[in-house]
Amino acid sequence: MEIENKHTWKSKLHEVIYEADTPNGKWFDILLLAFIIISIILVMLESVVSIDREYHQILYIGEWIVTILFSIEYVLRVISVRKPLKYIFSFFGIIDLLSTIPMYLTFLFGGAQALVTLRALRLLRVFRILKLARYLGASKQLKDSIIGSRVKILVFLFAVMVSSVVFGTIMYLVEGEANGFTNIPKSVYWCIVTLTTVGFGDIAPQTPLGQFITTIIMILGYGIIAVPTGIVSAEYAKNSLNKEENKGNKLIQPEDLIEVHTNSQCCINCLAEKHQDGAEYCHKCGCKLHHE
Amino acid sequence: MEIENKHTWKSKLHEVIYEADTPNGKWFDILLLAFIIISIILVMLESVVSIDREYHQILYIGEWIVTILFSIEYVLRVISVRKPLKYIFSFFGIIDLLSTIPMYLTFLFGGAQALVTLRALRLLRVFRILKLARYLGASKQLKDSIIGSRVKILVFLFAVMVSSVVFGTIMYLVEGEANGFTNIPKSVYWCIVTLTTVGFGDIAPQTPLGQFITTIIMILGYGIIAVPTGIVSAEYAKNSLNKEENKGNKLIQPEDLIEVHTNSQCCINCLAEKHQDGAEYCHKCGCKLHHE
Amino acid sequence: MEIENKHTWKSKLHEVIYEADTPNGKWFDILLLAFIIISIILVMLESVVSIDREYHQILYIGEWIVTILFSIEYVLRVISVRKPLKYIFSFFGIIDLLSTIPMYLTFLFGGAQALVTLRALRLLRVFRILKLARYLGASKQLKDSIIGSRVKILVFLFAVMVSSVVFGTIMYLVEGEANGFTNIPKSVYWCIVTLTTVGFGDIAPQTPLGQFITTIIMILGYGIIAVPTGIVSAEYAKNSLNKEENKGNKLIQPEDLIEVHTNSQCCINCLAEKHQDGAEYCHKCGCKLHHE
Amino acid sequence: MEIENKHTWKSKLHEVIYEADTPNGKWFDILLLAFIIISIILVMLESVVSIDREYHQILYIGEWIVTILFSIEYVLRVISVRKPLKYIFSFFGIIDLLSTIPMYLTFLFGGAQALVTLRALRLLRVFRILKLARYLGASKQLKDSIIGSRVKILVFLFAVMVSSVVFGTIMYLVEGEANGFTNIPKSVYWCIVTLTTVGFGDIAPQTPLGQFITTIIMILGYGIIAVPTGIVSAEYAKNSLNKEENKGNKLIQPEDLIEVHTNSQCCINCLAEKHQDGAEYCHKCGCKLHHE
Repeated sequence: MEIENKHTWKSKLHEVIYEADTPNGKWFDILLLAFIIISIILVMLESVVSIDREYHQILYIGEWIVTILFSIEYVLRVISVRKPLKYIFSFFGIIDLLSTIPMYLTFLFGGAQALVTLRALRLLRVFRILKLARYLGASKQLKDSIIGSRVKILVFLFAVMVSSVVFGTIMYLVEGEANGFTNIPKSVYWCIVTLTTVGFGDIAPQTPLGQFITTIIMILGYGIIAVPTGIVSAEYAKNSLNKEENKGNKLIQPEDLIEVHTNSQCCINCLAEKHQDGAEYCHKCGCKLHHE
Repeated sequence: MEIENKHTWKSKLHEVIYEADTPNGKWFDILLLAFIIISIILVMLESVVSIDREYHQILYIGEWIVTILFSIEYVLRVISVRKPLKYIFSFFGIIDLLSTIPMYLTFLFGGAQALVTLRALRLLRVFRILKLARYLGASKQLKDSIIGSRVKILVFLFAVMVSSVVFGTIMYLVEGEANGFTNIPKSVYWCIVTLTTVGFGDIAPQTPLGQFITTIIMILGYGIIAVPTGIVSAEYAKNSLNKEENKGNKLIQPEDLIEVHTNSQCCINCLAEKHQDGAEYCHKCGCKLHHE
Repeated sequence: MEIENKHTWKSKLHEVIYEADTPNGKWFDILLLAFIIISIILVMLESVVSIDREYHQILYIGEWIVTILFSIEYVLRVISVRKPLKYIFSFFGIIDLLSTIPMYLTFLFGGAQALVTLRALRLLRVFRILKLARYLGASKQLKDSIIGSRVKILVFLFAVMVSSVVFGTIMYLVEGEANGFTNIPKSVYWCIVTLTTVGFGDIAPQTPLGQFITTIIMILGYGIIAVPTGIVSAEYAKNSLNKEENKGNKLIQPEDLIEVHTNSQCCINCLAEKHQDGAEYCHKCGCKLHHE
Repeated sequence: MEIENKHTWKSKLHEVIYEADTPNGKWFDILLLAFIIISIILVMLESVVSIDREYHQILYIGEWIVTILFSIEYVLRVISVRKPLKYIFSFFGIIDLLSTIPMYLTFLFGGAQALVTLRALRLLRVFRILKLARYLGASKQLKDSIIGSRVKILVFLFAVMVSSVVFGTIMYLVEGEANGFTNIPKSVYWCIVTLTTVGFGDIAPQTPLGQFITTIIMILGYGIIAVPTGIVSAEYAKNSLNKEENKGNKLIQPEDLIEVHTNSQCCINCLAEKHQDGAEYCHKCGCKLHHE
């Protein structure tokens, strides 16, 4: 019976930490988000020399408090899951680990502290907490558009790369080291800066011929900016249209059903998410879901 | 009877100040616009040192004349409305107040004078005066597109923010203080400058590794510029299409009717606008509308 | 009979100068284009100090030859038209005059010479000569899209202007003269540079608060770049679709007919263009068209 | 019989070098790609002074090994084709030659070495090797959109050119040599930098009037960025729609059939590609295709 008890204790913890449907779960997640944001602000302030000089002690202590809390959270997450390895090697598992380690590394190295801002990636949890899941469902269409035009975008990027190398080399030959094009990699870098219309201006062509070639690069860049936009727009419009048509036909799509009834429950066994409301068993591993 | 008289006097004033259908009302609004533009130009010229040195006296007097006229206008606006508080706390009420206060504050502080350019916001009145209301109706479709893609744009902005913090920190570590990335907030700022393809160039990566990461950021920025464009385009195209279809079905839409017959009358009681032509009573509060 | 003769001589000249369907007319126009391009290159080279120092004499003589040829052409154009005033005050009439005057003005002033590059506008004639008229017909759809979304673009530009003035003033107050924001007009100029993602970098925010506000301006600019694109795209797509549908219905559109049969003839009386092939009389004034 | 034998030897070589369907052919192509990338990296590293100083000997030898291998490959390509001239003057034939010559030229001139990065263009072969042919088929739609809007894009570019010359001249007159606008060609170059929103900032307007005109140029540039995007988007959307409709009609399109069954075989006689799977004879010249 003790095992059963322990199991219940574990599954309650699991519910608080991994889910956001119960009041406790929600509070935990909001608290977590607040600590993530505080910790990012702390690291940012610490990097500002003038602030760090005055408030070093406070920032340092605050940082350690957050780190210890995150470490405890990480341990609890590992404990409360039935298959800890699955969590440890999941996307968020790795991010969670990476966001606590850097502070411990500061005992060994100095600069590692800044890596703590990798915690920013933890903010992606916000989507689950704020019940944004259904909004993501709305942006699913956008994702589909990007995936649908994946190959075209890759072909496009490849073409950009090849032309950057070719134009970069030409500019290196034309402008030379005297005008800031000190080597080919730097020239290629400059070429991408120009093609994307960023134009820092730290390096700029000085010779008339160089400026003429730059004109060609810029108009090329200006022209091809239309390409990815056109691709995604068209793909997106097509998806929108298809969806509209389906609605018109009054055919209930499977994804529409799931979209409506999904909750933030998370299987204690395999960490699968997006269970239907009222589901008793995990749709991935068949393990019984915990209900209070 | 005196009260009745006073009421008539008030309602006439209301008509001149708040409406633009009668000749007097139109003249008042055009004059007002002219004074707003003059006042903005005055403040702008005053900020140019060389001009201010020579014409300081003229600019100063001109500024005070405009301020006093605006103050009188503000008082008249408050007096001529039945529910003054409603006006005072409306968008234009606050803007109107904010555009007169700064000059009075200059008795106390020096720099406050520049705040006078907040008067620029008063220029938004131009839409009513130039009968642009119906054009705004045309741009309603655009507003709908933006609102319709609100959540997707927020998700997109959130993703931009998180990736800026992550890339900004990486660049701070890679480039360091020697190359202008003096602290993480500045690094994040630089990252957004690059992602949005603005590229001031006051800070620019110097190390080969930093330039390589910059290349990734730029291509990312170049790629995602397609996303909001694609979203709004598609949403807009969809709205256009729907409207076209409705027209095809010859179904008269309620908003079409209103669009045609709206005038610039403004209820003296509740400040409601967009009354139908020939309407005798306010469609919000039932108060009788004034007609000459 | 002499008048008749003179008329014939005039109408032949008219055909050569104004039209591009006969071999002579075509040769005249190609020669004209060549001279326009040569003249622009001459002025450009003249402005380059190192080139001008060496070849000043040649450039100067070349420039005068071109100017005299253009003057003769202008006089011939005026003579060969029945209603000279109509030509003189037409778009190309004014451009033709403006492109010859500056050289004569150099007897009086020095810098006026550079105005000669206004001749670039004469290059727009290329469309007629290279039979691009029908392509312009193709781009008519684009023009329709821009005209169709005219009001929306104006509303958009007005909003950009107002927000530039407001943000420019705020940046002037925040950054101050020490950081390059020397006065409000310059601040507003910087704000537009940033909003349009040009980002010269000659002026850049230095204070943390200024950089934070800049971030907002940039993301705003990045977001609203979607708006005009979305508007024109959607309008264009709609026009395309309508055209397609019409084609589907096999209804012959009047403009389709004209598009196919139009030639470059130009009425000697009223300068009307786009006559149908085989037309005997001008479709604007009824005057007989000249045929060899 | 010896001729027959030699023919077989040749055709086997042809298969290995030109095709990618047999294991040998595939291995050859992957090896080739690797050598191309290695050679580009070698040239890039060589241009970095600090690296070149230390590893000059290794880089130099590596470069010569790659060049000799490419030379052998080029000779083999010429030998194994029946009509060598057709290969020599094809796009890839010229690129292949140009990517070996520069190294030999270094015996005569110094800088020619950098031209070796023209080898980057050889990377375009990657599409055939990685069986990307079918993806290109997918991007065929994109190509159609660009071709379909070719004329409109040219008209657009021509308009950009004319306005750049006109605005460039005006800026030259307004700003003058003192502010960096040293001559008209440079002014025109600056104008294109601004119109395309690249904005290097090496030249920037200093006078109030110049900044005012710059504002107009930028807003113009910002507005017209919508034009090519809109054109390509709309064209692309139309093509997508047409394709969709055709699919709906269940009409099998000829290109769909070809797309599915095409392989990477290459006719030994005329170098024609895109043969159907199982084809026995070249669809261009009727020559028998080689099968193992």
